[in-house]
Amino acid sequence: MVAGPAQSPLVQASRRRPVPHTPVWFMRQAGRSLPEYRKIRSGVAMLEACMRPDLVVEITLQPVRRYGVDAAILFSDIVLPLKAVGVDLDIVPGTGPVIAEPVRTRADVERIRPLEPGDVPYVSTAVRELVGELGATPLVGFAGAPFTLASYLVEGGPSRNHERTKALMLGAPDVWAALLDRLADVAAAFLRVQVEAGASAVQLFDSWAGALSAADYETYALPYSSRVLAAVADLEVPRIHFGVGTGEFLGQLGQAGAEVVGVDWRVPLDEAARRVGPGRALQGNLDPAVLGAPVDVVAQRVRGVLAAARTAEGHVFNLGHGVLPDTDPDMLARVVDLVHTETAG
Amino acid sequence: MVAGPAQSPLVQASRRRPVPHTPVWFMRQAGRSLPEYRKIRSGVAMLEACMRPDLVVEITLQPVRRYGVDAAILFSDIVLPLKAVGVDLDIVPGTGPVIAEPVRTRADVERIRPLEPGDVPYVSTAVRELVGELGATPLVGFAGAPFTLASYLVEGGPSRNHERTKALMLGAPDVWAALLDRLADVAAAFLRVQVEAGASAVQLFDSWAGALSAADYETYALPYSSRVLAAVADLEVPRIHFGVGTGEFLGQLGQAGAEVVGVDWRVPLDEAARRVGPGRALQGNLDPAVLGAPVDVVAQRVRGVLAAARTAEGHVFNLGHGVLPDTDPDMLARVVDLVHTETAG
Repeated sequence: MVAGPAQSPLVQASRRRPVPHTPVWFMRQAGRSLPEYRKIRSGVAMLEACMRPDLVVEITLQPVRRYGVDAAILFSDIVLPLKAVGVDLDIVPGTGPVIAEPVRTRADVERIRPLEPGDVPYVSTAVRELVGELGATPLVGFAGAPFTLASYLVEGGPSRNHERTKALMLGAPDVWAALLDRLADVAAAFLRVQVEAGASAVQLFDSWAGALSAADYETYALPYSSRVLAAVADLEVPRIHFGVGTGEFLGQLGQAGAEVVGVDWRVPLDEAARRVGPGRALQGNLDPAVLGAPVDVVAQRVRGVLAAARTAEGHVFNLGHGVLPDTDPDMLARVVDLVHTETAG
Repeated sequence: MVAGPAQSPLVQASRRRPVPHTPVWFMRQAGRSLPEYRKIRSGVAMLEACMRPDLVVEITLQPVRRYGVDAAILFSDIVLPLKAVGVDLDIVPGTGPVIAEPVRTRADVERIRPLEPGDVPYVSTAVRELVGELGATPLVGFAGAPFTLASYLVEGGPSRNHERTKALMLGAPDVWAALLDRLADVAAAFLRVQVEAGASAVQLFDSWAGALSAADYETYALPYSSRVLAAVADLEVPRIHFGVGTGEFLGQLGQAGAEVVGVDWRVPLDEAARRVGPGRALQGNLDPAVLGAPVDVVAQRVRGVLAAARTAEGHVFNLGHGVLPDTDPDMLARVVDLVHTETAG
């Protein structure tokens, strides 16, 4: 039997089983830090790139070829499934997602319809092709968590303070619940499409959850993330759950249902293991800004992450957030090699 | 004897002494949320406004008149003392501080000269006039903490990821230390000018410290904040020390030397009191975005903050970050009244 992605270090570490080396991949490994990415994206808008299977396949493969990472992550954007269910939005360079008509009322919520597999044929096509190309390397599918998707929809775009989101959440809790229910369904359906086309793992990104206190996270975000994760449990692929600035509620995050909890660079992984508790693997958590330091400093920090991860029941090496656009790809290549050599055996 | 600012609830609570009611003020209480501020700033650039004593006095007094808050905070900007020692910078509407020549080398660092009181005559003038106008209401002076000032200087402006700052910090620790030493001297001198002109308390803002892990904070930021606070200890006014996203190192922050530790909304004040330890008062920590919710929700949250603060040895009510520009001033007025009535007696 030829070893497939189900036997890969990523999947095995996620299941807290022995691995030949610690698997490593990077959030945003496909993207602006790669010259081959900037070249292929030249003149192509972000949303268009996400909807063209040929580009999705090529961009997803670029970092796998270059770095020999232990996982590919589908090139896409967390707002893509919203676009696919009819939300009028664009991804504006230098700004991010811009929503034409922000969601503020129950009528706005009711216009968000469920996602059907036929809404994202380009995703299914790209995933099937990628799985063929990747061989034993697993493909990670992903979706945005309901709170983060809601923030984009309510604010109308990226937000520093999420004030309109919180005003709706606290001022109209019934509208909020209806919105997050729908977004949970959209996110779950989008993950399901990817796994059914062959993805070997999924990651639920709650990029903005760190704007919430632990109490508000537990009331207004966690139940919906849990719903998404529960809705794909039957697919039997590892589920990774990541947010930034979530140190105050890593314990709750660990209870949301994922096999793997992603941790940003603010909480050392040994402390994260204590907060998350037993029965979970951890993913993380090198500060992406550290990659701008000299190589000996980067190496020392990588070893520090690996040392802190020793108490974790399973460890997937990653950054504590996405690759920054100015990152030197050669430094990422060195990190992959170092993680592999340090943990081999 | 007439009670002066030294007997004010703000100063007394900071010293963990009994108060007639919990003092309340708001970070950024003077600013864009007030129509009278927008009117007086019309056609006047930010830096110009900070350097005109007549405007500084009027803008600083506006929220005191409107809300009856228990403290005024000098209208200024944390980059003003950098401008005053010759750093070529501007504050650009919608962007923030922009530094003409970012600091990257030892030679760049050596161009930052010490701050002399004569460099900021408009600050001394404004503070003296304000102290006369304010009577028993204390004036809080402030400065940016060395790490936060360094981030502006190294990045050339506001930064989301602080990558150049961290690259310098980790890659050239000697240059970093020299830079932060100088910035500590500038911040301490700027606080001293304000207190010597009559300010009754000072706040050291480390707005960006939350970008650091606890270990990096302890090595690369804390020693310099401690130096600033120590350098003004002889002035015998309460020192408040605030940062955003500092939950992971509230204990270290509490050891930096200030009488009062400011806490953002992510850590409840009872938990903050445990982390900070005895011998410190706390300031905070209503989520500023909550002010966009209906009044009954805001009132419930205010009561929640007051309840959590009961275990603190002293409490200064504030937001967990600055007033957001779209905040309804009437809601802030209600918060002041509610804090006063709930804690009177």
